[in-house]
Amino acid sequence: MPTSPETSPATYQLTLMPSGRKGQVSVGTNLLDAARELGVELESICGGRQTCGKCQVIIEEGNFPKHGIKSSPDHITEPTNLEIDYDQEHNLSGRRLACSAQILGDLLVTVPDESQAHKQVIAKAATERSIEVEPAVRQLYVEIEPAVLGDPRGDWERLAQALEDVWQLTDLVIDTKALLTLQSALREGDFSVTVTIWQDREVLRIQPGYQDGVYGLAVDVGSTTVVAHLCDLRTGAVLATQSAMNPQVRFGEDLMSRISYTNTEPQGLSRMNRQIIQTLNDLAEKAAKMVGLSPRDITDVVVVGNTVMHHIFLGIDPAQLGVAPFALATYSALDLKARDLGLTLNRACRVHTLPLIAGHVGADNVGVMLAESPRDHDGISLIVDVGTNAEIILGDRDQVFVASSPTGPAFEGAQITHGQRAAPGAVDRVRIDPQTLEPRIKIIGHDDWIEPYSDPLQTKATGICGSGIIEAVAELFLAGIIDSRGHFIPSVAEQTERVQFEGLTAAYTLVEEQYSATGSPILVTQNDVRAIQLAKAALYAGTKLLMDHRGVNSVDRVILAGAFGTFINPFHAMVLGLIPDCDLDQVVAVGNAAGDGARLALLNKNLRQKAVHLARSATYVETPLETNFQDEFVAALNIPHAEHNFAHLEGLIPDSPPERPRRRRSRIRSRTQ
Amino acid sequence: MPTSPETSPATYQLTLMPSGRKGQVSVGTNLLDAARELGVELESICGGRQTCGKCQVIIEEGNFPKHGIKSSPDHITEPTNLEIDYDQEHNLSGRRLACSAQILGDLLVTVPDESQAHKQVIAKAATERSIEVEPAVRQLYVEIEPAVLGDPRGDWERLAQALEDVWQLTDLVIDTKALLTLQSALREGDFSVTVTIWQDREVLRIQPGYQDGVYGLAVDVGSTTVVAHLCDLRTGAVLATQSAMNPQVRFGEDLMSRISYTNTEPQGLSRMNRQIIQTLNDLAEKAAKMVGLSPRDITDVVVVGNTVMHHIFLGIDPAQLGVAPFALATYSALDLKARDLGLTLNRACRVHTLPLIAGHVGADNVGVMLAESPRDHDGISLIVDVGTNAEIILGDRDQVFVASSPTGPAFEGAQITHGQRAAPGAVDRVRIDPQTLEPRIKIIGHDDWIEPYSDPLQTKATGICGSGIIEAVAELFLAGIIDSRGHFIPSVAEQTERVQFEGLTAAYTLVEEQYSATGSPILVTQNDVRAIQLAKAALYAGTKLLMDHRGVNSVDRVILAGAFGTFINPFHAMVLGLIPDCDLDQVVAVGNAAGDGARLALLNKNLRQKAVHLARSATYVETPLETNFQDEFVAALNIPHAEHNFAHLEGLIPDSPPERPRRRRSRIRSRTQ
Repeated sequence: MPTSPETSPATYQLTLMPSGRKGQVSVGTNLLDAARELGVELESICGGRQTCGKCQVIIEEGNFPKHGIKSSPDHITEPTNLEIDYDQEHNLSGRRLACSAQILGDLLVTVPDESQAHKQVIAKAATERSIEVEPAVRQLYVEIEPAVLGDPRGDWERLAQALEDVWQLTDLVIDTKALLTLQSALREGDFSVTVTIWQDREVLRIQPGYQDGVYGLAVDVGSTTVVAHLCDLRTGAVLATQSAMNPQVRFGEDLMSRISYTNTEPQGLSRMNRQIIQTLNDLAEKAAKMVGLSPRDITDVVVVGNTVMHHIFLGIDPAQLGVAPFALATYSALDLKARDLGLTLNRACRVHTLPLIAGHVGADNVGVMLAESPRDHDGISLIVDVGTNAEIILGDRDQVFVASSPTGPAFEGAQITHGQRAAPGAVDRVRIDPQTLEPRIKIIGHDDWIEPYSDPLQTKATGICGSGIIEAVAELFLAGIIDSRGHFIPSVAEQTERVQFEGLTAAYTLVEEQYSATGSPILVTQNDVRAIQLAKAALYAGTKLLMDHRGVNSVDRVILAGAFGTFINPFHAMVLGLIPDCDLDQVVAVGNAAGDGARLALLNKNLRQKAVHLARSATYVETPLETNFQDEFVAALNIPHAEHNFAHLEGLIPDSPPERPRRRRSRIRSRTQ
Repeated sequence: MPTSPETSPATYQLTLMPSGRKGQVSVGTNLLDAARELGVELESICGGRQTCGKCQVIIEEGNFPKHGIKSSPDHITEPTNLEIDYDQEHNLSGRRLACSAQILGDLLVTVPDESQAHKQVIAKAATERSIEVEPAVRQLYVEIEPAVLGDPRGDWERLAQALEDVWQLTDLVIDTKALLTLQSALREGDFSVTVTIWQDREVLRIQPGYQDGVYGLAVDVGSTTVVAHLCDLRTGAVLATQSAMNPQVRFGEDLMSRISYTNTEPQGLSRMNRQIIQTLNDLAEKAAKMVGLSPRDITDVVVVGNTVMHHIFLGIDPAQLGVAPFALATYSALDLKARDLGLTLNRACRVHTLPLIAGHVGADNVGVMLAESPRDHDGISLIVDVGTNAEIILGDRDQVFVASSPTGPAFEGAQITHGQRAAPGAVDRVRIDPQTLEPRIKIIGHDDWIEPYSDPLQTKATGICGSGIIEAVAELFLAGIIDSRGHFIPSVAEQTERVQFEGLTAAYTLVEEQYSATGSPILVTQNDVRAIQLAKAALYAGTKLLMDHRGVNSVDRVILAGAFGTFINPFHAMVLGLIPDCDLDQVVAVGNAAGDGARLALLNKNLRQKAVHLARSATYVETPLETNFQDEFVAALNIPHAEHNFAHLEGLIPDSPPERPRRRRSRIRSRTQ
């Protein structure tokens, strides 16, 4: 047909807001397809059947003559009966269903946030950033041909055909358990069903008729704490968070005790495995209940954890992780069935575990990398996650190195004379007046600073936790009570009774016995100082090793991950030389970044592939094999150690609680709420 | 290097017996690889490491100067130390390990049966034929690099690498449960393991060191009987067979009763499912125990069963199979995990179910097709499997048609006045003297023919089973007691007191009350004759329908499958017109061909694909939709019905127990032992 100026053009211009995308679209195309052509994906569960209402759009111009383009006819088709029905039931408020509305002329259309597919959510990471919601499981609504005499196919084959016809999904399989409910769901829904599908490969769930709601669980199995976030996999929202103590704590606080429990108790492994599984089942049930769901509504789970927790969670004996060469059973990301692990979620629910890196560098660290990858930032990033071992990640966009350094448990308050876990009653913050040498402390569970010598304690202190002992040692040094080799200075004993020498050892009385819950004074001893020196030297030596591997002398950004990072004062950490010199503003605590990583991988399947890439492209440095490690370790024992340029911090040394760290502390706190 | 006549040729001639294959092979090639080049696959589990001893061969010529080729030097390398070690431990008796022996000259080598890979076994099918043993699971021996510091890979990644290096297997996954035992097996075996692998895709089992033994279970879940064959998947041998009553019988003898049990009892489905699973677990345990194995040694299972048994076995509610349009949940072949079904075999054991064809044509019929496919034979084959429905398969190499015809349960002795299941005490064979009109019978549990009027019964009869009633009706006709419309002929009542008329009905007394266990006479009534007429008409009409579809008027071969086929007398079947005319020699009972099909699919993975092809390429004819079916049915009610040319059988009408059918019966019996 020849085209004349009078003839309508075969295509019209469509402009989509807020993205601003525009392009020519053929007449008669519906807005759902048209938006897709322009690269804007709209939500749709019903597949264009005008029933789910997910693809609502606002027609800004082109539709109504009064809306600007006065002389033009309507540029869009009238609502269909189905759309009118939907409007009467759900009230479209003047919006249109994109799958119904067809283009008859130039249009300007706004896509509201809630209609946008692959929604952006804000990740609670150090650097707030948005992630695209593109989960591994999604829901699809389909109507299938009813069974009739003469069609010998099974219902599953008819459903698979419909999924191919409407959603272009081929080679689908159906989970054994989903198959059991197929026929009743189809008939209850009059041969229309909502299918939950995993990775566009496997049908996990079949619900009668049109259903809206697909949910997943992001889990961080820590040695001490287990956290589960129940997420809406369509919006990306965290609907509920539940946490619990890891019940394995009763078998040993640290990882080595857990390993030896499995070695010495015949039922040790299965007992610890059952307990963590039961805990996850409980957390899932509670989280689901909070928002009126059932655990069977959960069809996808992502799990992170350190190597030992990962193995025990899977039911794998962690024995090999306790002895060199610390061989993992597997370091691959795994795609499993929840039921094979004993998880009582949806019967076909999937479980994805992030990959591991090495015997001491687990899926939790990969989760941290996913949330805070050095590859996503300019300059050199250092990420430190301290537990019994410190996991250290250092790199930039080009290269990432990973190591584990044997800091021992001192940073967690263990093997410290009056050390304890961070719990109510523990001293977690310490200041020592360089003039009077008197301490001020904070106790977990109390907001105010306490000066024991003048301010009768409301609650007595029970011990010192990890952050408390680090601050105490740093403050002892800043107050001139210990020297840079970590030795108590004998002459100080003449200035204060708090410092006492007994033979070759010495101690500082942090809390007198009358203010101590134990009835004995809470001391910081020469041995405690030594333990912190050894731990911080191991941490620094590991960091230095990776800096050497990367060929750098400084870092641009320090990320403190995990509980240790949350409660440590970056200023004191730098005074002690736990971390290399860096602008204090660039030292950030990211709290449970491992859990954030799990959530990222739950919400976006592509990030699972990225996690594998990050894990496999990182160069693992085995500290025991590094000849320099011992030298670096010895060199790092001093406070500040030989290479540490301490001068630039001097103006910041607080005699009263420092402003700067306090502000940071409060920022950190808000990040972990 | 220039070649002169003096220079040894770069290749030598290798001849392999008994296959007679020969070809040129490069000098230095070992015999294992050389045989493979010539298309002769030898057994090998260790992958050429000279340890498994599976690839033994006999060097006939070329090795020793005394062996013929006098002037030539030895044509094969000397035994290695490893081979000498093997000889000392296991005694090679002069044989060589093919993986060790390298070719240095022309050779004649015999491959003994036991060294031949893909062994041939004889299938217990109507036409005995050999099948190649090529199971879905196989064992591979590998040695892997020990874990060392500096290699962060997990043990699984090292194992996968070894499997790729030695066996060229890529993209392997490991079953969740197999992963649990990986590390201990590797260390127990000093980093050498035997891996059981499914479809070259998934590792199912890891055993320390070198292990030899891979086993599977072929299962036929019948409505009445469940049979399990434990097979050696390397040799193809059936090691043990166990069978049991299907415990679901207590919930209903026939399929419809089972379906209504699941409809009416809330726990009906799960109860019946649990019982069949428990039965299979018991059978597997007993079979394994018989040969010194454990159920955990079973890593593959193939299951066949009719559509209702198939669904209940999987835990699928069979409700839809009880009402039109008889929709299956799925008709696909399924690959499942045994543990998902509750089977307590190896924790990673696989289950394969053969495909189904339609609502009444199940995996048992596909099993029959696999064992007896019309596509493998010249001429038209008719396969009949009679239960409550008769499944009919008809076709040739080009086209196969399948139908299910509603014969009702009369052929199984149900809905017959004194009918019963085939069990001790049931009359299963009947002859009526055309002169005296007196019967002779056989009773299950007794070998001899009994003439009730002269020979006091040792054991009294309890009823008539399916084969008994068919023979009785045929004999009533042959003796002139009923006419071709199936009506008792009134004048006969004057010849014998055995025929009595009461009003509109009549009956023949087969066993007088004094010889009956019930205290009442065992009769064959007018209604019984009618029931058999209806059933045989349905069967014949279905067959005729398929003959019409195929465009033929006769068949060349009749296969009677299942218990019905085993105990029915082909002569009487043809007299009654159950099956169309056919040379009696070409009527064969194949017993449990469904179970044979399961075994075939267990032993050869390619036959699983063939089963899918057979199922999907067969044209299903829905009898209720065929307008001709009713006409054919009515036309087939007479004995012999209108189209049946009975004349040619006349010479065979037995007045004494017929020789020919008796021989056949005994042949059939031997087939089902």
